[in-house]
Amino acid sequence: MPISEKTLPICISLFAVAMALAAPGHAQVSSPNDPDEARIEDIITASHILTNEGILDSFGHVSARSAKNPEHFYMPRAMPPTLVSRADIVEIGPDCKPIAADAPRLNGERYIHCRIYKARGDVQSVIHTHDLAVIPFGLAGISLKPVVAQAGFLPPETPLFEVRDANKDKRGMLVINADLGDALAKTLGSNPVVLMRGHGDTVVGRSVREATVRTIYTHIDAQAQSAALALNPHITVMDAAELAFNATENFDADRPWQNYKSRLPAGH
Amino acid sequence: MPISEKTLPICISLFAVAMALAAPGHAQVSSPNDPDEARIEDIITASHILTNEGILDSFGHVSARSAKNPEHFYMPRAMPPTLVSRADIVEIGPDCKPIAADAPRLNGERYIHCRIYKARGDVQSVIHTHDLAVIPFGLAGISLKPVVAQAGFLPPETPLFEVRDANKDKRGMLVINADLGDALAKTLGSNPVVLMRGHGDTVVGRSVREATVRTIYTHIDAQAQSAALALNPHITVMDAAELAFNATENFDADRPWQNYKSRLPAGH
Amino acid sequence: MPISEKTLPICISLFAVAMALAAPGHAQVSSPNDPDEARIEDIITASHILTNEGILDSFGHVSARSAKNPEHFYMPRAMPPTLVSRADIVEIGPDCKPIAADAPRLNGERYIHCRIYKARGDVQSVIHTHDLAVIPFGLAGISLKPVVAQAGFLPPETPLFEVRDANKDKRGMLVINADLGDALAKTLGSNPVVLMRGHGDTVVGRSVREATVRTIYTHIDAQAQSAALALNPHITVMDAAELAFNATENFDADRPWQNYKSRLPAGH
Amino acid sequence: MPISEKTLPICISLFAVAMALAAPGHAQVSSPNDPDEARIEDIITASHILTNEGILDSFGHVSARSAKNPEHFYMPRAMPPTLVSRADIVEIGPDCKPIAADAPRLNGERYIHCRIYKARGDVQSVIHTHDLAVIPFGLAGISLKPVVAQAGFLPPETPLFEVRDANKDKRGMLVINADLGDALAKTLGSNPVVLMRGHGDTVVGRSVREATVRTIYTHIDAQAQSAALALNPHITVMDAAELAFNATENFDADRPWQNYKSRLPAGH
Repeated sequence: MPISEKTLPICISLFAVAMALAAPGHAQVSSPNDPDEARIEDIITASHILTNEGILDSFGHVSARSAKNPEHFYMPRAMPPTLVSRADIVEIGPDCKPIAADAPRLNGERYIHCRIYKARGDVQSVIHTHDLAVIPFGLAGISLKPVVAQAGFLPPETPLFEVRDANKDKRGMLVINADLGDALAKTLGSNPVVLMRGHGDTVVGRSVREATVRTIYTHIDAQAQSAALALNPHITVMDAAELAFNATENFDADRPWQNYKSRLPAGH
Repeated sequence: MPISEKTLPICISLFAVAMALAAPGHAQVSSPNDPDEARIEDIITASHILTNEGILDSFGHVSARSAKNPEHFYMPRAMPPTLVSRADIVEIGPDCKPIAADAPRLNGERYIHCRIYKARGDVQSVIHTHDLAVIPFGLAGISLKPVVAQAGFLPPETPLFEVRDANKDKRGMLVINADLGDALAKTLGSNPVVLMRGHGDTVVGRSVREATVRTIYTHIDAQAQSAALALNPHITVMDAAELAFNATENFDADRPWQNYKSRLPAGH
Repeated sequence: MPISEKTLPICISLFAVAMALAAPGHAQVSSPNDPDEARIEDIITASHILTNEGILDSFGHVSARSAKNPEHFYMPRAMPPTLVSRADIVEIGPDCKPIAADAPRLNGERYIHCRIYKARGDVQSVIHTHDLAVIPFGLAGISLKPVVAQAGFLPPETPLFEVRDANKDKRGMLVINADLGDALAKTLGSNPVVLMRGHGDTVVGRSVREATVRTIYTHIDAQAQSAALALNPHITVMDAAELAFNATENFDADRPWQNYKSRLPAGH
Repeated sequence: MPISEKTLPICISLFAVAMALAAPGHAQVSSPNDPDEARIEDIITASHILTNEGILDSFGHVSARSAKNPEHFYMPRAMPPTLVSRADIVEIGPDCKPIAADAPRLNGERYIHCRIYKARGDVQSVIHTHDLAVIPFGLAGISLKPVVAQAGFLPPETPLFEVRDANKDKRGMLVINADLGDALAKTLGSNPVVLMRGHGDTVVGRSVREATVRTIYTHIDAQAQSAALALNPHITVMDAAELAFNATENFDADRPWQNYKSRLPAGH
């Protein structure tokens, strides 16, 4: 039996499998036919993917509308997105409060999600980030525009939310009540993305996967536009025909989703 | 050595290793004398290298002309390049369709490869990327020029493909039919690289390894030129004598190929 | 399971594991009720976190005031922060000299910490970095301003320390005596951060965790402001009401601390 | 004997040790008292460190003068620096040719090293890089200046080598003969660093460690100066007194050397 460096990984793998099987419990109550469980699993994966790609930091959150009860939605409790697992997901009702009486502490900014779900019946997932690639656009008052082919879902100019205009009682920059959530939803309008000055962006989609991939391509588009503007203030952006083509096609979110998922470190 | 219920899995593991090594199988049907198999292996490695270096993303693809049947070429099915393995490689004929009746779904942009192989008998490999380092040049209308010694294969000005000029029926930015493939090949001309506005670039070579290394040094040259232009709009580029020297030498692709291959994570 | 000369090492390994686990030792003398030990543990973790995030390099240091003896403070001996462990922590007195007679070699720049603790009774932790994101502001004479919501702890303009003005005997750029430490503390004033021209910054907090998170968000704020200024010299910064909101709230340092701690490689 | 996830790493480590001990041969002929062996070990470590820090790529090389025979020097054969090990080190004589008749293929650019050792008796180590942080300065005709405290070894303006001026027979940009090596050494003069237009830089030191650390801080200084110039074309650079202080102090190369060495992936 030759033992070499090549056999070591095999040994370790088998050992790990054996240990996993030997371990008592860890009984994950899975409901393969529950459509909400699939959405929740995608919330978890998206939280890990967007952190791994450097778009989510210690804050930011991914949510999904409930398929079973469309006035409800799911999002993680207040915690770093990279650490989110099934036990951290909270169901929230139309009053923006948790359904469970003993729910853990929630994100103050759950109103972003809650009020967009109310305003936009077509939206199945909402993602809020502090993406450093988009923040400079809001600070500089420069419109984010679609410049790379995969960002063709963006409108000719992505709207910018100025919290200072909406914030009557002048209480900082966060979207922490229903009025501010409504103001953000109004600026978002029927668009897929709204930038937030000094804060980040909020992205919506017809699924968690679509919202995730849109979040990533908004990030990439912002990087491309910033770098192009450094070369020349006059750049070529996608025209109406190019955008129309994208709008009528279903964007294939699955391929980038599989790609970014494959990049997660082991254990996620 | 205490043997208990808990050490049993280790013994099982070692036993399984012994069985695995004893097994005659793992029979990978390899044809060491088949020149196409060597090219296919390089397609797979190049797909992994270019993803690992941040040049390929969820899309983009590497192909190679068949040595046995030069009107055919090989490229991966529609999938993220980082996940490509031998089973994903498809043989494609001069009509840009797969040879096998039961071929998996192909990349819509296989016409980039198909029509360049038709137009350029000297080309043995084609690589299409969404490289974020080159995209700003097309958006800004700034010519990519050879500025670093290892990019001496570039012409004085790398051509830029404006899909809008070629796209008669205004159907987006992708090269998804033979006419667009021909238009791209025409802009490429006899050059090693063509930039694509809002999209990326396409690079050709006399081997997969040469095309891969050219793709990487186009990326590096674009980074150097962008950073230099930020310091001074007037920069020194390689002159005719410097380029002529490069043109007459065979660029040593093997050394960077070995370097970038060594950087792949374990398992690739 | 064939046992041969080659499998013997595996058995030896397993036997050694059993021995290691059976050993009562690994006794780490911990004092769970000692408030200074908790602060020292945070110094170590912060040193690793700030290196892992690319903010500390071979130099730079994290310190904490002693809870038991507030005229004393703890900081690592002269060494790269990524390598710091418990044995490297030195207790230093109000004369900026180590308490122990046999203390290892200290950082010449311990005067940064020593003199700020003297000047600022509210400060429980001091961090000095060579952060490349903030250095350009000092070199360029551009004020660092709060632009992202999480950097709302910053004043409208972060002060800049020009060592050349303070350095009477013209001995370089480092803060290596009490006079220079006092000059730096004077420029810091009652602020949380002071930039140091050509050098980095110094950040203070009411705990190691707060100082660490402030160091990271100063870094992020500098990145956002730099990128925004590249798009437009006129940018929107946080206004008095937005800053006031932050000033009156306790910044939640625990969530980013947990996030950045979770990103440390195994072994830290 | 409790077996848990925590014991697995111990098991693997012990297994690896056992395997290493069981393996026949690998007898490394070490000469602990041979000063040249210590220099060669540092060449190998420096090659790995500078690749790991993104400064060396597939090309570039680290060399050291022989302590035993100061007209000789050691450098790796033509290969990617990240892969260099003891067997790849070649001893080269004052004629820039290998001492051994059966030496492997050498770097064409060994003349950089060979002619600088001839011109500069004080130099014990030479490093040549394609550092992307310094290349923009040569392309843009902007002087690299000392701006960060740790780069105080730099002169007020780092000289720039324009190969086009030296290259009488117009044969490209590489330094591949003695005449070009002499021209580079002349531009270097008594400085620690010379930039090379479109190519990179060459750095010298009184030891491999000093040359390595100087290479890294030249890289960092270039990044800081580039970023500062993007904010304001008028920046503050180190003055004569600040540089004089650095010049008279021995720069502590050991601390960054230990730091960067600790960052190497396992196996290096």
